[in-house]
Amino acid sequence: MLSSLPSRLRLLALRPASQTPAYQVTAEKVAAAFGRSTSPLPPYEFRLIAPDDPEMEAALARADVLIGSSVPTEAVAATRGALGLIQLTSAGVDHLVPLDWLPAGVELTSASGVHGPKVMEWAMMTLLMLHGHLPHYAAAQRRHEWSPRESSTIAGRGLLVFGTGGIGKAVADAGRVLGLVVTGVNRSGAVAPGFQRVVPTLLAAEALGEADFVVLAMPLTPETRGMMDRDAFARMKPGASFANFGRGPLVDQEALAAALESGHLGGAVIDVATPEPLPASSPLWAVPGLIITPHVSCDDPETYIDRTLDILVGNLHRRAAGLPLMNRIDRQRAY
Amino acid sequence: MLSSLPSRLRLLALRPASQTPAYQVTAEKVAAAFGRSTSPLPPYEFRLIAPDDPEMEAALARADVLIGSSVPTEAVAATRGALGLIQLTSAGVDHLVPLDWLPAGVELTSASGVHGPKVMEWAMMTLLMLHGHLPHYAAAQRRHEWSPRESSTIAGRGLLVFGTGGIGKAVADAGRVLGLVVTGVNRSGAVAPGFQRVVPTLLAAEALGEADFVVLAMPLTPETRGMMDRDAFARMKPGASFANFGRGPLVDQEALAAALESGHLGGAVIDVATPEPLPASSPLWAVPGLIITPHVSCDDPETYIDRTLDILVGNLHRRAAGLPLMNRIDRQRAY
Repeated sequence: MLSSLPSRLRLLALRPASQTPAYQVTAEKVAAAFGRSTSPLPPYEFRLIAPDDPEMEAALARADVLIGSSVPTEAVAATRGALGLIQLTSAGVDHLVPLDWLPAGVELTSASGVHGPKVMEWAMMTLLMLHGHLPHYAAAQRRHEWSPRESSTIAGRGLLVFGTGGIGKAVADAGRVLGLVVTGVNRSGAVAPGFQRVVPTLLAAEALGEADFVVLAMPLTPETRGMMDRDAFARMKPGASFANFGRGPLVDQEALAAALESGHLGGAVIDVATPEPLPASSPLWAVPGLIITPHVSCDDPETYIDRTLDILVGNLHRRAAGLPLMNRIDRQRAY
Repeated sequence: MLSSLPSRLRLLALRPASQTPAYQVTAEKVAAAFGRSTSPLPPYEFRLIAPDDPEMEAALARADVLIGSSVPTEAVAATRGALGLIQLTSAGVDHLVPLDWLPAGVELTSASGVHGPKVMEWAMMTLLMLHGHLPHYAAAQRRHEWSPRESSTIAGRGLLVFGTGGIGKAVADAGRVLGLVVTGVNRSGAVAPGFQRVVPTLLAAEALGEADFVVLAMPLTPETRGMMDRDAFARMKPGASFANFGRGPLVDQEALAAALESGHLGGAVIDVATPEPLPASSPLWAVPGLIITPHVSCDDPETYIDRTLDILVGNLHRRAAGLPLMNRIDRQRAY
């Protein structure tokens, strides 16, 4: 399975740790995704397996495509079968790096973009909450305190989004719907859909000082780990606010807490934390002006797996046509 | 000043209790509003007065129009001057009822509709928060607990709005933007802009049992006081959620707390409470699944007074033309 498809596709799906039916790749969902395909694909067989199944080696040896999130990296590294493609059910790949286990002939693709509609709604909510001082009101409620603060309508304010991929674009879309001026940050500064302006990472410091809302939506890599540190928060405009839609370790949590406690930041909403789940003993829970949600901004049980399988089906067609795959993870950059 | 305008208009504005400059009616804002008028108005004089000024009686005696919120009802009842119009800077009139102090020749108009853009954004935020389980997460944060719950995208769910006036319309607009199916409730069941369906109050019980989101946006009157009681909450669909954009006393707060504590309701966000400010001793602060904000959903310091004065200017033109006034308060119904 290199630049064409075998006459019969063998699909192997990993049963996720979560027992929620919505996040299971099932024979029915695969059949539906193949059914949505507008041009024909080879017949396929489908098998579901637990990541710790003792038969994993044999199952991998006779699979063309592996689908899932908790990839058994050692078994994949050792396989000598026809495996040509791993379709992740996650947008991020940070739980699998470094990618030195990935055999040379196997391509890895993510579920990036699948989360678009849900993330866009979550971003609209988060931006309106930051603008409307909800982090302040939540903290005031913990103190049993009626403490009004003014806010007008949100339009015309500045939004800076770190990351211009699938989740960044959804955040940018939310910003545009609300009438914000949306700037993106990516490595090269290349134009990206949904953004009115994009600046390269190296020049982000100035944009950081101008934005009313700063949102993280980039992958966790060695370069991005801890990027929101004391210096970065200090560069933000007094009263500006912050959200994290990416990964917990992008943020120095002590620096975030200090920026909120000093009143430098107007508020923050984080959907990711370090570690997850955040333990009850974490001082982060009680930081003023901080709302914590438990990594749910991307959840969409009604459509998540269907949309991931649509990416897979699209990539099978691309394979058959010899085209580069969508959402292909770069082995070195690991995103 | 009955169905025409005097050759020189005498405007008297009440200084509000809040010292926030944004909520002051000033000579500059009046001049700007008259300047925005597309057809000519008589020249005017403008005076600002504190509601407890000892010269109130004399000032009222030589005013054609009174502008403000905390109307000195006794002084107005006693006035024998040319006063013909009171333009409120509030959407609600419940703080002035019964309206038996209002002289027969004086019309009373509200600022209803002024809050539209801000309320629409607040309603979008609130609906997305209810859908996204933010009341649950805020309560979980108080307990230092990482406790994910699933939610998909919001579209297609049912929103029931009690009240189809200015604030109700803004809530309906927010619902339509989010793809909700929006039903309104008003006294007569008359069609109202922004609503896909309107049912009369007497038939609201069935709609109450079908909605995913129930929002109050109606005035406080003897008929609506306490309308959300134990029976009403019990009629709501299990897991449905609730918001109050109207007035605190529309809700039996003990019944709301019980419906949340039992888990019957999925969550609630209230921007109004009884009393206001809610004292620190209130048990409401700690009710699970409840987010309380301090009566800020309608605040819009950047445009509030300007938009209120635009209503006044529009009504001066209507007076000159002998047309019925916009936002006229019915003396019996008091809304």
